[in-house]
Amino acid sequence: MGLPRIEHLGIAVRGLEEANALFERLFDHAPYKTERVEREGVSTSFFRLGDTKIELLESTKPESAIGKFIEKRGEGIHHIAFAVDDIRAEMARLRERGFKLLHEQPVPGADGKIICFLHPKSTNGVLVELCQDAEAS
Amino acid sequence: MGLPRIEHLGIAVRGLEEANALFERLFDHAPYKTERVEREGVSTSFFRLGDTKIELLESTKPESAIGKFIEKRGEGIHHIAFAVDDIRAEMARLRERGFKLLHEQPVPGADGKIICFLHPKSTNGVLVELCQDAEAS
Repeated sequence: MGLPRIEHLGIAVRGLEEANALFERLFDHAPYKTERVEREGVSTSFFRLGDTKIELLESTKPESAIGKFIEKRGEGIHHIAFAVDDIRAEMARLRERGFKLLHEQPVPGADGKIICFLHPKSTNGVLVELCQDAEAS
Repeated sequence: MGLPRIEHLGIAVRGLEEANALFERLFDHAPYKTERVEREGVSTSFFRLGDTKIELLESTKPESAIGKFIEKRGEGIHHIAFAVDDIRAEMARLRERGFKLLHEQPVPGADGKIICFLHPKSTNGVLVELCQDAEAS
């Protein structure tokens, strides 16, 4: 139980192509995959960094969470995702400890995961995601 | 060369004591150390998560970088720090690739590191820190 590891860090960007080129120059290695998640209204790319990843997110529709975030705060770090083995058990533990969850049940995310977000009001302004490999659910 | 691993993630908080209690409830484990860095005007605590860490930062003077960040944007994720083996070589590589550095030379940071920040204007709004173990410099 608990959150043992950061699975990835999400960064909101205006243009994925330009951001991929910039982060490739920064990290000195290329993204290992790109993926469009229609349900969330985002195009994403992933860079591997040790046992964690960085996900770049471009909004593909203005009403998406990323579109609204960029409109309000500009580009920047959007969320931290923690790997969990049993997302439903972890959701129950966090609810019981007073955290506010944005989903009643896990929902499908990018990169073959099922996910749940916590409300940033209950976590010092940090948008926290829990994620679990979908095949393990 | 390049940035192979996230060393830590910095989160700006208003009160370190309350934030330590909250993140301990979230992660289900306690911070492994706390440290006051007078030069930066911050009190910090560190939680281990896999091969990376989360650093909570409370401002101890209003004119500190963390104090100004919270005044402008509220609590939240403040920076991403990448572990590097040779910070001076990495600074030279990034300068050459067009990134703007906030320091000419590495400066002492928390947790026994020497560090350098990149200007967030050159990295999609993300404040990037490079850090190297001070004993290895």
